[in-house]
Amino acid sequence: MVSEKMYELGARKSTIRTIFEFGRKRAAEVGEENVYDFSIGNPNVPAPAKVNQAIVDILQEMDSCALHGYTVAPGDPGVRETIAQSINRRFATNFSGKNIFMTSGAAAAITICFKALSEDDGSSEFITFAPYFPEYKCFVESVGAKLDVVPANTEDFQIQFDKFAEMLSPKTKAVIVNSPNNPSGVVYSEETISRLAKMLTEKSQEFGHPIFIISDEPYRELVYGNIKVPYIPKYYANTLVCYSWSKSLSLPGERIGYIVVPDEVTDFNKVYGAIAGAGRVLTHVNASSLFQRVVARCVDEPANIAAYEKNGNLLYEGLKDAGFQCLKPQGAFYLFPKALEEDDYAFCEKAKKYDLLLVPGADFGCPGYFRAAYCIKEDTIRRSIPAFKKLAEEYRS
Amino acid sequence: MVSEKMYELGARKSTIRTIFEFGRKRAAEVGEENVYDFSIGNPNVPAPAKVNQAIVDILQEMDSCALHGYTVAPGDPGVRETIAQSINRRFATNFSGKNIFMTSGAAAAITICFKALSEDDGSSEFITFAPYFPEYKCFVESVGAKLDVVPANTEDFQIQFDKFAEMLSPKTKAVIVNSPNNPSGVVYSEETISRLAKMLTEKSQEFGHPIFIISDEPYRELVYGNIKVPYIPKYYANTLVCYSWSKSLSLPGERIGYIVVPDEVTDFNKVYGAIAGAGRVLTHVNASSLFQRVVARCVDEPANIAAYEKNGNLLYEGLKDAGFQCLKPQGAFYLFPKALEEDDYAFCEKAKKYDLLLVPGADFGCPGYFRAAYCIKEDTIRRSIPAFKKLAEEYRS
Repeated sequence: MVSEKMYELGARKSTIRTIFEFGRKRAAEVGEENVYDFSIGNPNVPAPAKVNQAIVDILQEMDSCALHGYTVAPGDPGVRETIAQSINRRFATNFSGKNIFMTSGAAAAITICFKALSEDDGSSEFITFAPYFPEYKCFVESVGAKLDVVPANTEDFQIQFDKFAEMLSPKTKAVIVNSPNNPSGVVYSEETISRLAKMLTEKSQEFGHPIFIISDEPYRELVYGNIKVPYIPKYYANTLVCYSWSKSLSLPGERIGYIVVPDEVTDFNKVYGAIAGAGRVLTHVNASSLFQRVVARCVDEPANIAAYEKNGNLLYEGLKDAGFQCLKPQGAFYLFPKALEEDDYAFCEKAKKYDLLLVPGADFGCPGYFRAAYCIKEDTIRRSIPAFKKLAEEYRS
Repeated sequence: MVSEKMYELGARKSTIRTIFEFGRKRAAEVGEENVYDFSIGNPNVPAPAKVNQAIVDILQEMDSCALHGYTVAPGDPGVRETIAQSINRRFATNFSGKNIFMTSGAAAAITICFKALSEDDGSSEFITFAPYFPEYKCFVESVGAKLDVVPANTEDFQIQFDKFAEMLSPKTKAVIVNSPNNPSGVVYSEETISRLAKMLTEKSQEFGHPIFIISDEPYRELVYGNIKVPYIPKYYANTLVCYSWSKSLSLPGERIGYIVVPDEVTDFNKVYGAIAGAGRVLTHVNASSLFQRVVARCVDEPANIAAYEKNGNLLYEGLKDAGFQCLKPQGAFYLFPKALEEDDYAFCEKAKKYDLLLVPGADFGCPGYFRAAYCIKEDTIRRSIPAFKKLAEEYRS
């Protein structure tokens, strides 16, 4: 009677959601402050004051019909120009409004790209690198294409290029890059991006058609220390940049982001046209007309990196002390340590006994590890460290 | 290299868009006030003052992370309960929050229903009644199903039941009802809805599975005189109501609406689950978290019916005077008069000479007619009447 696929996708709870709900239940039993919930990647830093101020100003300044009315499907031309100029200032690029397509967040942006690039006969393939955001699979399959996953390079969570080279095929439409990465918290180095660009240039030539990079970068601004995130269109022409203000301005519920389509992509008009068509059939008529104006006014507003950096270092030092093996925080708001036994599901179950809510790495295509989201209260992190130590002791005894 | 289908859908301009753009160009030549643009169904009445006040209040009252953070995919539970109670007060129904699924407008709502109800093998069919909103075809086909259109009953623009009965088949998943109707401006009578319900009940029994009604009702509140819009779930259990505040609160750019899934539908859990899955793959992560709260606070705010009613009557009387054949305005903000020659495209081209911008009925599956959207300035309508008269004279001479 209904689509079984849709029912499965709608009714089956994700592991993360199940853990989160367990946490809510447990909090009711033992108190909010005694549950160390590292399960959800939901910003805990408020939006900058400028966001709400921009909303109030816009309401006062703009005519209601102009403000709340439809914009053209790619987004308000003035907003798109403002965003292009901000990108140009930061990355020495040369974009204008016509290179920007406003979207309802990054999930819409990447899926619009999948749909735009996929052949209508269902033969297309996309590749990503473990560990990876599990919704990629669901989104790629929903446009009738296939997702291949390159196994994780667990040494430094950069790319396993030998494995990747074997997986590229004439059916490969694009490679999904997510750096800073959810869940590893790693930033792909300039060396990684250069090597990726070189390999894709060669393979595009060999196959006689471009292989795109879809750069999913909602965490772009959340990087710590001296780490730089290479701006991929500077390294590889056929790059579609998918951005969202969900994390940088703490607006995940408002669904606002964009796609950059550089002039340099092969056949710009075809690509931009197909993106518009994909946005249309995915029923993103236009991104919120109010929030388009809001992000344009806040386009140079810095993210609150300090809060996340403090949290990340605190958790990292605590985990190291407790004997966990883990890379230093580089970006996003996740750590991805090695589990203390091979079976990461069993490990995360055991962690629950200490009210530590962690997500198994297998959920991200990387078994044997776990994800800890540190976008939570500093005090919760501080008080969780003894629990991590007890958990580690259980494995030593 | 890209999906040809998506490129076609994104690059090909709709007739309405082409006419609208011609109007912008013409306005630059002869002045805004001398172009009588009846092409676009974009509300020209500002949002009620309560909308902007609600936004300001919510920003002051709510914590930033709670306000701008993700809501659960079906929408904030409190918002959904408020909406359910408002529907109950108005239609003597018995819904609660669990019957509501918040969406990014009506386009998302109906397409989520199409996707949820369609078999995964692409064998499903949907039926609608001409004249109809042309995006239906694009949305139904995008989920891999087929749209069948019952020819218009041009006598009163109710339903041609004999033709409809012939078209129902075991593959029919749902019937799309749009009343008040775009483009005809007609409201389906209680008699029509009762007869539709009876026929679908019989055919559901005959085929051994439910045929749903998808009631697309963004114009529900825009009705004039004593006309009542029957609330379809009261007549037929397997009804999914798709609503949007685009027209009633003049918020088309903010993309906010909902689906009602009554308890009484066959296998509620399956249907609601499939709707959640369809929303997920169409990448509507959640409807705008701010605008969910805004519509909850404005849920009983009346639409500015008076302004549209005045416009509709003014245009109707003017067209009648000029010799056009047209039904009296019943609802929405459209009139759908008979063109003065069989070829409605030729007629609309001729109208352009008088700076009258009208949309051919063939675009809505009903050739020989044209749509005039009267959500424009009263003064423009007033000054357009002589142009309609000159156009009619040209046909008489």
